[in-house]
Amino acid sequence: MLSFEIRERDVLGRIGILETKRGKLETPALFPVVNPLAQEIPPRTMFEELGSKAVITNAYLIKRRPEGTNAIDIHDFLDFPGIVATDSGAYQILQYGGVDVTPLEIVQYQESINTDIGVILDVPTGSRASKARALETVEETIRRADQAQAVITRRDIAWVGPIQGGLFPDLVAHSAREMSKRQFPIYALGSPTEVMEQYLFSCLVDMIFAAKTNLPSSVPFHLFGAGHPFMFALAVALGCDLFDSAAYILCARRGRYLTDAGTLELARMRHFPCNCRACAATSPDVVRSRPVADRIRFLAEHNLLSCLREIEVVKEAIVEGRLWELVEVRCRSHPDLLAGLRRTGEYPIQLAGASPTTKTKGIFFFDSTSLQRPEYLTYIERLIRDYIPPKAARTLLLLPAGPQRAQETHCTSASRWRFGADTHVCVYTPPYGLVPLELKDTFPLSHSTTVVEPGAEMLRAMSETVRKYVARHKAYRGLILVISGRRWQTRFATMCESICKKARIRLSIRSESDVRNTRAKTRKDNSLPSVSSRRQRIRKS
Amino acid sequence: MLSFEIRERDVLGRIGILETKRGKLETPALFPVVNPLAQEIPPRTMFEELGSKAVITNAYLIKRRPEGTNAIDIHDFLDFPGIVATDSGAYQILQYGGVDVTPLEIVQYQESINTDIGVILDVPTGSRASKARALETVEETIRRADQAQAVITRRDIAWVGPIQGGLFPDLVAHSAREMSKRQFPIYALGSPTEVMEQYLFSCLVDMIFAAKTNLPSSVPFHLFGAGHPFMFALAVALGCDLFDSAAYILCARRGRYLTDAGTLELARMRHFPCNCRACAATSPDVVRSRPVADRIRFLAEHNLLSCLREIEVVKEAIVEGRLWELVEVRCRSHPDLLAGLRRTGEYPIQLAGASPTTKTKGIFFFDSTSLQRPEYLTYIERLIRDYIPPKAARTLLLLPAGPQRAQETHCTSASRWRFGADTHVCVYTPPYGLVPLELKDTFPLSHSTTVVEPGAEMLRAMSETVRKYVARHKAYRGLILVISGRRWQTRFATMCESICKKARIRLSIRSESDVRNTRAKTRKDNSLPSVSSRRQRIRKS
Repeated sequence: MLSFEIRERDVLGRIGILETKRGKLETPALFPVVNPLAQEIPPRTMFEELGSKAVITNAYLIKRRPEGTNAIDIHDFLDFPGIVATDSGAYQILQYGGVDVTPLEIVQYQESINTDIGVILDVPTGSRASKARALETVEETIRRADQAQAVITRRDIAWVGPIQGGLFPDLVAHSAREMSKRQFPIYALGSPTEVMEQYLFSCLVDMIFAAKTNLPSSVPFHLFGAGHPFMFALAVALGCDLFDSAAYILCARRGRYLTDAGTLELARMRHFPCNCRACAATSPDVVRSRPVADRIRFLAEHNLLSCLREIEVVKEAIVEGRLWELVEVRCRSHPDLLAGLRRTGEYPIQLAGASPTTKTKGIFFFDSTSLQRPEYLTYIERLIRDYIPPKAARTLLLLPAGPQRAQETHCTSASRWRFGADTHVCVYTPPYGLVPLELKDTFPLSHSTTVVEPGAEMLRAMSETVRKYVARHKAYRGLILVISGRRWQTRFATMCESICKKARIRLSIRSESDVRNTRAKTRKDNSLPSVSSRRQRIRKS
Repeated sequence: MLSFEIRERDVLGRIGILETKRGKLETPALFPVVNPLAQEIPPRTMFEELGSKAVITNAYLIKRRPEGTNAIDIHDFLDFPGIVATDSGAYQILQYGGVDVTPLEIVQYQESINTDIGVILDVPTGSRASKARALETVEETIRRADQAQAVITRRDIAWVGPIQGGLFPDLVAHSAREMSKRQFPIYALGSPTEVMEQYLFSCLVDMIFAAKTNLPSSVPFHLFGAGHPFMFALAVALGCDLFDSAAYILCARRGRYLTDAGTLELARMRHFPCNCRACAATSPDVVRSRPVADRIRFLAEHNLLSCLREIEVVKEAIVEGRLWELVEVRCRSHPDLLAGLRRTGEYPIQLAGASPTTKTKGIFFFDSTSLQRPEYLTYIERLIRDYIPPKAARTLLLLPAGPQRAQETHCTSASRWRFGADTHVCVYTPPYGLVPLELKDTFPLSHSTTVVEPGAEMLRAMSETVRKYVARHKAYRGLILVISGRRWQTRFATMCESICKKARIRLSIRSESDVRNTRAKTRKDNSLPSVSSRRQRIRKS
């Protein structure tokens, strides 16, 4: 009955269908944390009116009630018709140092209340643990996983295997490798909450990669305690499928208003930048004039709707093939988030090839951050590793193709010229330093739209491609670089100069108009003079 | 009665209160275009349910009806209780080449129907006009403005003076200078619709600066035909206060769904990334199954709510002092929008000093685009132009301050050191190349959060600041650059090397640990050895 089917992919993110005993859940999905004992928003309202198809609550707190031993069904208990996940009290271990329940008791209790998704009682590492302590938590969690597996009787519950290790990627990797042997239907990265609260998004990226790289990608991956809408896009792009968070209510109690770009304070707001049903009906002034409980309820509803909306935004971005674009946008909500996105540049192998190999919509390149996108990495990797130039190619002709819109003109005229068999016609266009002419109409080349003036980092990446290419294909004796007068092309030419010098191949830099005129004169010869003289030189040699 | 009061400012944008004879309108504001003859969304619904406080309709089309001569009040005619603006038929000139109404007739007609905001019958330049033709449209519009001023009897109507000139900034500037002499209560940039449709946002930026620079900033500025939510933030940041657009309905008819990040096609959508009342109640599948008219009505409502929400987002960003941050985010919706934002870098004088000189919230620096922000430009300008170093300063000591969070540690320890009177202690921290220690706790230095690893362009900007500073203050004989081992600091050091070489001052690069150790040893001397030797050399000379 339990299953996870991946329907769409973009970057390392996916849209999936998680089938539980209570029904299907489309992922990525957020489980709002519901306090089992007191709720600002009734769970039924969440389901029927706000669109929450799943919630998470705390089995440990329910068990601890005086009447905790009475038999209940968690769905009835919460009055929630959807999917209910339960946590085991691990969060309480992190907060209060311990819990008065055994790992076995809490597994059995979760079975008895008929939870849909259960968590074994792991030992969270937290973000302040020493490496020795972190290793202890990893080993203890693995031991408990084995104990839990032994007592689990209900296999219709989706049991979550928590990955610990905290800020130590090697321990996270070890934890993931060990847990993956235990074959849980869901894996979860333990307690990154503190990491996120401290905006250590670069560390979070390392933790997620360490875990995901060592887990089967076909299993859903839960990021414990992640609930701010501004980081869902990044987390999903790295392969996180499930989130749970109490941020919507905790922030509400502190007067905080969540948006996809950060957190605002109700006390200072003058406009609601939101169309949700809570905001559409009122204004900050009016809300501030209400009793505290109403204010909290208002903020909780807005915050939850804001989180749920962002999940839809992320899903639709995956459908559109624009998840990377969304991540670039969201990661400009805070410099530390952008630092996190940049950190993904350390994982080119994981990212390359992750995305679909073709897309219907264009892909956008803004600056060097865009160079970390899978489509670009995949292209460069394949160009350098797999592409085989024409056998006779001795002269590499690099024509400017400009940004997408200008590309057509240049390329058409380029392909109309006929060159000698020793000339290999390629084009260059930000962010691509070298595109064999025959590939220019394929994905992603034909689908790329780039800011007209590439920055220094993009230019360096372009020249680096040329460098790697000529280093790999040693048959070229000369490079003819045609430039059309843009400033960045002149800088690109300077970079090519030093590449050719090092590779000991002759460089000829020609202006486009120059080439066109020469073309007209030497039509009979069907080649550019420099190419032809080049050829003669090669023949002689 | 007519007035415009500016309440808040950020970048070149503002929140204002425009007082019309029908009441107050908070700006920035969007006037949805209402077809006077047939409406998908009843104007009363727009006012009462969707939050549109003002609409614009076409006086020319109303006048052209067979019954056009009957006396009407435009508010009753549309059944709209809010502020009604009327256009004069200029759009029809652009679309169909002419209108069968005289400039005087249409002014009188707008008066007769009791419009709140009227437009004289200008001649739109469009985006395809030659320069000669563009000049003609400018001159003819000015002539018509004079004629209109002569026949206007109702000064309780806010008359709009259109600025023409199309893609020629010098003509736009000329038009603005001439129109500003005519003292209209509102100015408008004529027909940038085509420019926006072609995504020529760099041209749009030039046009807006050309107009705004030559108009009184105390008067509201309307951008005709701008209605896509993804460009409101940029337009407002450049000083646009009013927008009008039919995009919400035109896109609806073509099955297009507007978001703050671009346009989606209903036909392909799977999730609604939106919390508006239209989207919250349904799903793409359901909407697609409905009759065409219902689909259009749905999209029109969503599109309009999406536009209105974005106006609120922009206003709240101004309140928060985070408009530049919002612009950076929105301009990553498309490379051409980012090109538009980058173009604002050509207008440092207009941008510097535009923003409030202090803010309660931090400001974010992501990359070189952030270096165009007013706070940075203002700081650099003042540092180079106005700052006076201590008289005895001969050695410039540059200590690393790291990003904001790390700043405190470094700076505190730096200020605890006591240096000789000839040593001028400054710190450097991305994006600031040089900050005199006494300024480090002032705005914007203390409020800046920057991505930890600055890119090549940011490093260049930092070194450029050092270059300009030492070029201006020639008393320095030496520069001691302290680095703490980060890679970017090494690159910064290389840049400083070439600066010092050219400026003929001695450079000493020291590692931070080195300096700290030396410090401990030479505590009595109260100065760094290299500084002291420097001092001796200077004394001797």
